[in-house]
Amino acid sequence: MIIVMETNANREQVNGIVARVKALGLGAHLSEGEERTIIGIVGSPLPPTLDDELEVQSGVERVVRITKKYKLTGWDFHPQKTRIAVRDVVIGGDAVTIIAGPCSVESEEQTVDTARAIKAAGATILRGGAYKPRTSPYEFRGLGRRGLEILATAREETGMPIITEVMTPADIEQVGEFTDIFQIGARNAQNYLLLEEVGKAGKPVMLKRGLSMLMEEWLLAAEYVMAQGNPDVILCERGIRTFESSTRNTLDVSSVPVIQGMSHLPVFIDPSHAAGKRALVPALALAGIAAGADGLMIEVHPSPDHALSDGAQSLTFDQFDELTPRIAAVAEAVGRSFAPMPQMAAV
Amino acid sequence: MIIVMETNANREQVNGIVARVKALGLGAHLSEGEERTIIGIVGSPLPPTLDDELEVQSGVERVVRITKKYKLTGWDFHPQKTRIAVRDVVIGGDAVTIIAGPCSVESEEQTVDTARAIKAAGATILRGGAYKPRTSPYEFRGLGRRGLEILATAREETGMPIITEVMTPADIEQVGEFTDIFQIGARNAQNYLLLEEVGKAGKPVMLKRGLSMLMEEWLLAAEYVMAQGNPDVILCERGIRTFESSTRNTLDVSSVPVIQGMSHLPVFIDPSHAAGKRALVPALALAGIAAGADGLMIEVHPSPDHALSDGAQSLTFDQFDELTPRIAAVAEAVGRSFAPMPQMAAV
Amino acid sequence: MIIVMETNANREQVNGIVARVKALGLGAHLSEGEERTIIGIVGSPLPPTLDDELEVQSGVERVVRITKKYKLTGWDFHPQKTRIAVRDVVIGGDAVTIIAGPCSVESEEQTVDTARAIKAAGATILRGGAYKPRTSPYEFRGLGRRGLEILATAREETGMPIITEVMTPADIEQVGEFTDIFQIGARNAQNYLLLEEVGKAGKPVMLKRGLSMLMEEWLLAAEYVMAQGNPDVILCERGIRTFESSTRNTLDVSSVPVIQGMSHLPVFIDPSHAAGKRALVPALALAGIAAGADGLMIEVHPSPDHALSDGAQSLTFDQFDELTPRIAAVAEAVGRSFAPMPQMAAV
Amino acid sequence: MIIVMETNANREQVNGIVARVKALGLGAHLSEGEERTIIGIVGSPLPPTLDDELEVQSGVERVVRITKKYKLTGWDFHPQKTRIAVRDVVIGGDAVTIIAGPCSVESEEQTVDTARAIKAAGATILRGGAYKPRTSPYEFRGLGRRGLEILATAREETGMPIITEVMTPADIEQVGEFTDIFQIGARNAQNYLLLEEVGKAGKPVMLKRGLSMLMEEWLLAAEYVMAQGNPDVILCERGIRTFESSTRNTLDVSSVPVIQGMSHLPVFIDPSHAAGKRALVPALALAGIAAGADGLMIEVHPSPDHALSDGAQSLTFDQFDELTPRIAAVAEAVGRSFAPMPQMAAV
Repeated sequence: MIIVMETNANREQVNGIVARVKALGLGAHLSEGEERTIIGIVGSPLPPTLDDELEVQSGVERVVRITKKYKLTGWDFHPQKTRIAVRDVVIGGDAVTIIAGPCSVESEEQTVDTARAIKAAGATILRGGAYKPRTSPYEFRGLGRRGLEILATAREETGMPIITEVMTPADIEQVGEFTDIFQIGARNAQNYLLLEEVGKAGKPVMLKRGLSMLMEEWLLAAEYVMAQGNPDVILCERGIRTFESSTRNTLDVSSVPVIQGMSHLPVFIDPSHAAGKRALVPALALAGIAAGADGLMIEVHPSPDHALSDGAQSLTFDQFDELTPRIAAVAEAVGRSFAPMPQMAAV
Repeated sequence: MIIVMETNANREQVNGIVARVKALGLGAHLSEGEERTIIGIVGSPLPPTLDDELEVQSGVERVVRITKKYKLTGWDFHPQKTRIAVRDVVIGGDAVTIIAGPCSVESEEQTVDTARAIKAAGATILRGGAYKPRTSPYEFRGLGRRGLEILATAREETGMPIITEVMTPADIEQVGEFTDIFQIGARNAQNYLLLEEVGKAGKPVMLKRGLSMLMEEWLLAAEYVMAQGNPDVILCERGIRTFESSTRNTLDVSSVPVIQGMSHLPVFIDPSHAAGKRALVPALALAGIAAGADGLMIEVHPSPDHALSDGAQSLTFDQFDELTPRIAAVAEAVGRSFAPMPQMAAV
Repeated sequence: MIIVMETNANREQVNGIVARVKALGLGAHLSEGEERTIIGIVGSPLPPTLDDELEVQSGVERVVRITKKYKLTGWDFHPQKTRIAVRDVVIGGDAVTIIAGPCSVESEEQTVDTARAIKAAGATILRGGAYKPRTSPYEFRGLGRRGLEILATAREETGMPIITEVMTPADIEQVGEFTDIFQIGARNAQNYLLLEEVGKAGKPVMLKRGLSMLMEEWLLAAEYVMAQGNPDVILCERGIRTFESSTRNTLDVSSVPVIQGMSHLPVFIDPSHAAGKRALVPALALAGIAAGADGLMIEVHPSPDHALSDGAQSLTFDQFDELTPRIAAVAEAVGRSFAPMPQMAAV
Repeated sequence: MIIVMETNANREQVNGIVARVKALGLGAHLSEGEERTIIGIVGSPLPPTLDDELEVQSGVERVVRITKKYKLTGWDFHPQKTRIAVRDVVIGGDAVTIIAGPCSVESEEQTVDTARAIKAAGATILRGGAYKPRTSPYEFRGLGRRGLEILATAREETGMPIITEVMTPADIEQVGEFTDIFQIGARNAQNYLLLEEVGKAGKPVMLKRGLSMLMEEWLLAAEYVMAQGNPDVILCERGIRTFESSTRNTLDVSSVPVIQGMSHLPVFIDPSHAAGKRALVPALALAGIAAGADGLMIEVHPSPDHALSDGAQSLTFDQFDELTPRIAAVAEAVGRSFAPMPQMAAV
């Protein structure tokens, strides 16, 4: 950490900073220039909020933190890209992974039909919500345990692993009985106790980016999961909130290369929640793959106009069928492969 | 709800909409103009996502929801402004209410000293965090139950009611043993299961605005609490996330008159979290009162430079002492009163 | 336009609205429901701010504008996609167009070398700034007329058309002597008098999106150019300003399909200004093409570390050479072609 | 400027940076720690974009600029607060200044009536637009020269100085014949050539904040004006663009204390453009004064419902009459005075 003093800072102010730093068991190295003094702090651990504290001291112009706040999620800690095996599917490898399925599990027929359709089109993981976070308390909130059972049935029928959201620590055990991957939604992305509890559950976790989360905050949220000993975290960009209102959220496609520069964790794109309108989903899905995403999460429904949630952004089976070959083509164009379910022929 | 069809929508498209509406048990009233057809939907209840569903139908230009999504929080439901009595303090009345205290409860001495100091300066409710949400898993997270006990001690010593944050449903019972008001933090503002559980706990709830929450979303979050039969919700604006980086968040002071136009619930301003720097806190506190806020929540610490959290934005006792008479003066200037603890002399 | 009255609006309030509408020579059609009255306004032209005016009348709950504010830029006015021929290059056709070159024209050698390098790699239009808008008055502002002459020399040497920015009406004549396409920068995107004057100059105009411009505002800015009789406008997304700080701006890649749904005008992506860092440029360039953009504008410099402006986001010749085949591959994957300069062999 | 090298940066990378710095005629001071090397750059002038250039060099972790980019607008340059005398009115002194008037000058009667009404209520400067920037080319754009003449008439009638917007360099001479203060609108806040030309015109300039302008960018825009020898710049916050849609813009009231910490220039608040709805204007006006603003700019119209622009946010005479005593009360509460036109009685 570097403390840049103001040009008119006096000796007493400099000494005050040095005394505070030493009181913390850290070393202070002074560099006195013609114009101003700069203090380098050495030693560890640095208190996480030391920069905030020092920045408001009198005589201080600016504090610069040099070390990163995140550790386990960074390349320094884990210099190989993380690959996550979920049953027969490998996430984070050469092949891009397509997760698809309905926003909400509504019935066995709806879910199994969708599972079969998306598998035939090339998806390898089935998504579906049994517990749904809703902006209004008066909206449909999912089938709960029955929804989880239906997802398990769809897995048996198709061989595809499943992913579903968990919203509160008390549900982790039950959801964990069924799911292959836990999903943490955008609104819970900084629900730290949920992150820790799900980190203990011993299964991969997909962490959606919060609506107004900075990159470092996103990694620190993943850090909560990893700090419990769970290395298998997948990050999923689903759009951020900006002034632009023509889309439900603004897909920050740059997050893909930015995160890949900071972290070894796989990054996915969710074009459905970003767009909010199905007509925009294909363009965003292709953009995500072109930007280097490790996979996509796409909402598909047998009859979107009758969906109990997010119908407006769900693709029909036909639209999804049309999209996957285009995803495969763009994946190849950027040096990735696209592999449907390995045991597909057998099922 | 009004469905505006495109100018070139055909008969079949119009009929499709009408059929869908009737299938839901609602009525459809056609108004066929020279240029286009407009369909009015009558009856209730309207499915909460019907507008999303219809908006993407072919032939539809736009859907306009006329009825509001929120109910219990709106003036239609409760035409008097909500007043909340917390021990001897009335929130939402003529007097503005000052809540103050340290970000985190760190020790009995720190907390009781602060409680006495803020009471002497005119605050009437003590705040203090026992469970702290932190962006990084490596930061101080509060004293837990011991923190709650210390707050209770400070209440005994001063007679001031206390407010503290609850972060997860499993903690509600324990926190409820001690606190007078539950605080829900910005990062949990859309943690719906927490909102419901705290709604059942039978004590007033202060709901901070999420970092990227729209007004309607904020009221709908309050609706989750109220739908459990708890009428005592206080809203607290603490800054939103924008492109501006010179403050920790951007205080949306307009939220005060906007919410007051939509809802009967009291609205507070938290200038400390908005500013992030103590030098800015007085200006924002005064602006909040001038805009009509029912109260303020301000961080105060006996020695902010040694605080375990948020020291940079905490006022010293002296700074708080200097601020409260200015708050009182602005409150009077806008027709509000400012009353210190009623039984103050007696304690 | 539809006026939705409040449920408790009285007869007098309804009559007031009707009277005001009739005073403007428009018709008012009342639809009186059980709960509320809705007033439809018919006739034209509607004053552009009539919705704002009526929305604040007493008794009015909401005003809904049905007609779009933009005309010339919309599909209704021009149902074929706009193609713009600039010398031998066609913009908006099947092939994607790569515009490349230095941020600022610094010398003849730098510019001609860059022109040759980018042409060899597949670019077909040369960019270069002679007049530079700079955030600080103390930064390099371009070579002015000498810069324009250098661009013309590079055009002679390579056969490539050129594009350069014009910042103020007084410069239009001089810039127009040289350039093939006028560029209007993000900071001038709502400099309406500049838009009108450049609209009269009889050459294609590329209009960058302003940092906080909504889609409709962007089209209305293009409308200023087109209203002067100039049909040849190209829109260029270059990132918007959001809370995210890891990139210079946030590339709103969704703007490509959104604009394509609203307008017949070609849409480009500028990954250099969006990213602000050269390491991110390739991913964003590929994402833009995958999303359906008609072209890219990329900064390239012979020695970015010595560039007088925007060096941090400029690609080297080698990096650009590596990128263009990948752009071609993604273009093909989404059904577009990629054609280098037609007379390339001959030069 | 400080260059923080990566922990694994090698000798060659460090030498490369040092060589580049020396080539610019600057000195480099190495501080080699156990973990990493830090390079301090000394000497001047620093190229304004040197930080951007160095930040992308291999081996560099981060570059920290210590010196501020703005000069003339900062306290270092001018340690007294700027006071600006405009005829009999002093801006930036103890008294807060109320500028009021119609959005657009529509007729002599409308303007003179408004001038008399606002003067009677305590305003001391008359605003009115003769040249109006409009989002759409099809909206009313002001009366031009006739509007300026009307403003001059209103000044004669009331003795109040006038302020009006100038949109393009070609209009400066004409507008300057009439106006006492030039206004630069939000959309032109980074129209640098306009800023320079208006800086040469020898009259005070009010610079509105752009919709997505950072504090430093705002000061740098003011720097363009001041660098022409014009010390009389007034900054005016009028709301920024955020995700929040319940107000036309989001009033960033924090900009008042933040700018006051950075600059000696007076800061105003424009509650009318921030709010967009007249019902919200009083709360925002009072908040601005409480936060320490040097003045307000408020839209007032004799008959807002018939205004040719911005009627929805304009106050009636009665509303303005009611507001000014409340402004005076809040001004006094925060230690400012409120003085109506000095020669008021005489006129």
